[in-house]
Amino acid sequence: MGREVCALLQERRTKCNQLSLIASSRGAGTKISVNGDALTVRELNERSFEDVDYAIFSAGGDRSKHFAPIAVRAGTVVIDNSSAFRMDRETPLVVPEINPGDIKTHRGIIANPNCSTIIMAMAVWPLHRVNPVRRIVVSTYQSASGAGAAAMEELRTQTADQLAGRKVAPNVFPHPIAFNLFSHNTPIGPDGYNTEERKMIEETRKIFHAPSIAIAATCVRVPVLRAHSESINLTFDRPIDPQEVRSILSNSPGVTVVDDVSANRFPMPIDASGRDNVLVGRIRQDVSQSDGRGIELFACGDQLRKGAALNAIQILELLQSNT
Amino acid sequence: MGREVCALLQERRTKCNQLSLIASSRGAGTKISVNGDALTVRELNERSFEDVDYAIFSAGGDRSKHFAPIAVRAGTVVIDNSSAFRMDRETPLVVPEINPGDIKTHRGIIANPNCSTIIMAMAVWPLHRVNPVRRIVVSTYQSASGAGAAAMEELRTQTADQLAGRKVAPNVFPHPIAFNLFSHNTPIGPDGYNTEERKMIEETRKIFHAPSIAIAATCVRVPVLRAHSESINLTFDRPIDPQEVRSILSNSPGVTVVDDVSANRFPMPIDASGRDNVLVGRIRQDVSQSDGRGIELFACGDQLRKGAALNAIQILELLQSNT
Repeated sequence: MGREVCALLQERRTKCNQLSLIASSRGAGTKISVNGDALTVRELNERSFEDVDYAIFSAGGDRSKHFAPIAVRAGTVVIDNSSAFRMDRETPLVVPEINPGDIKTHRGIIANPNCSTIIMAMAVWPLHRVNPVRRIVVSTYQSASGAGAAAMEELRTQTADQLAGRKVAPNVFPHPIAFNLFSHNTPIGPDGYNTEERKMIEETRKIFHAPSIAIAATCVRVPVLRAHSESINLTFDRPIDPQEVRSILSNSPGVTVVDDVSANRFPMPIDASGRDNVLVGRIRQDVSQSDGRGIELFACGDQLRKGAALNAIQILELLQSNT
Repeated sequence: MGREVCALLQERRTKCNQLSLIASSRGAGTKISVNGDALTVRELNERSFEDVDYAIFSAGGDRSKHFAPIAVRAGTVVIDNSSAFRMDRETPLVVPEINPGDIKTHRGIIANPNCSTIIMAMAVWPLHRVNPVRRIVVSTYQSASGAGAAAMEELRTQTADQLAGRKVAPNVFPHPIAFNLFSHNTPIGPDGYNTEERKMIEETRKIFHAPSIAIAATCVRVPVLRAHSESINLTFDRPIDPQEVRSILSNSPGVTVVDDVSANRFPMPIDASGRDNVLVGRIRQDVSQSDGRGIELFACGDQLRKGAALNAIQILELLQSNT
């Protein structure tokens, strides 16, 4: 995530007078080249935020809870990628294409939504604006990148081990990931939904300002390196047809329709990887809803780009343009 | 599939006076050991079925269409694994745990359902018997084995190539499968559903004798070697709770409930591989259906066992016990 933010700051030429890279003691000392300057990563401490206008946090919920208030007191506006403040009533949860106006109410912290949530929201929001979505049934195909660089490395190493006939020992993930898949390994609540699924349900409602939208989510980790995929079944308020959906999504910023039936080409992780836009395809009338209110589609988005770093930088750019 | 049938015939000690192995010219001449005998695979021809009581066909729709009627005329009962006769009104489509009685109406051919259909049907039927299922929304995670041994080899080779930084060139599959996934590469009809999805919809209705059950299916190929997974969202006629679902499925032949919330252990392809039973877990009340009629679950089944060879052999055993 950190390296992706640096890459995007260069790529997008985001306004930035001075860039500081901060990490835990483990990452401190590393040199990272940004815009031709070799920057040294410094160690995080309680004085790290002096003279910092904006900070992008991606260091887990506990660190965010401790350091975000410290940064805010120092006058920094924090864009936080953890789940610590996302459902906090006073913290806006923003996808710039969807609810940019929410940013104005911030009190120093703006939360970046969960990656799976952002990808689904990008595909569904343009339709919801035109014809309110009443119910979503989503199943995810989440890549290793969602669990960090070490998880991606584990997928590579473990796969090589399995191909060579060596014993596979999971470390980052609780189960083997090579040529396997498993239910997202976040804690499961009393209702049987895991935290990742809860995030998709609750964050989508908050971003859409649609507290009553019904959402069922099943989150699954698959042996893909980067980019999440989602199979999305929608029920709308009124009938809607695939041609209208295709037309709306084709004109939506941040979305690319990939729906070539004759070539059997639809969104795939390898095509979404490294791209800013969320790919949407397999757009069809849901045959299980006879009233014409059902649509099925399939989306892929780069979990590290729009699912994390890109969205955070878009929030930063929105803050800059508002001042 | 052929080798799996041989392995299961030995393992289950299925009654078998004489076993003949038949293949196209490409496979003819191969020696396969069954019950200690090295059998030579013979080449298929129009006289292959003389004195054959039962034949298990797994050679694609075109060969089945040509040779099944020839076999039937020779007095052979054909268990056909292709899609050629599945939706034929005169051909029973049988999952022995579900509709064994349908076998009695056969006119020489009994069709073995599609692998994804069987796995879903095994998880859903025991519930449907007690409380009719009105709607199913399913998303699949299908392994390479569904496309045959060459596809499994392609997944292995391509993955090794990608790990070594070599260029990946798809051959069996239309898109790279290493660390990637894609919409099931079967032809797409005018309604936007591909053939695999259509099979799940139509075959389930036929097996369940439930022509009005509403089914929405999204079929996706994932980089897993063997065993298909399915995320299944159900709407029942009447309210039903997860405890009842768990209790019914725990007592259903051919189903194993794997639903350990505290250990975060649910059905996984590597656990389903090589096993006869379909694994079912993630059983929870669907939070998106406020009337208590919704259940979500996740199933994994060995595509080559219950999804193909095992079901065919169970049909054979059913035929033997009926005569």
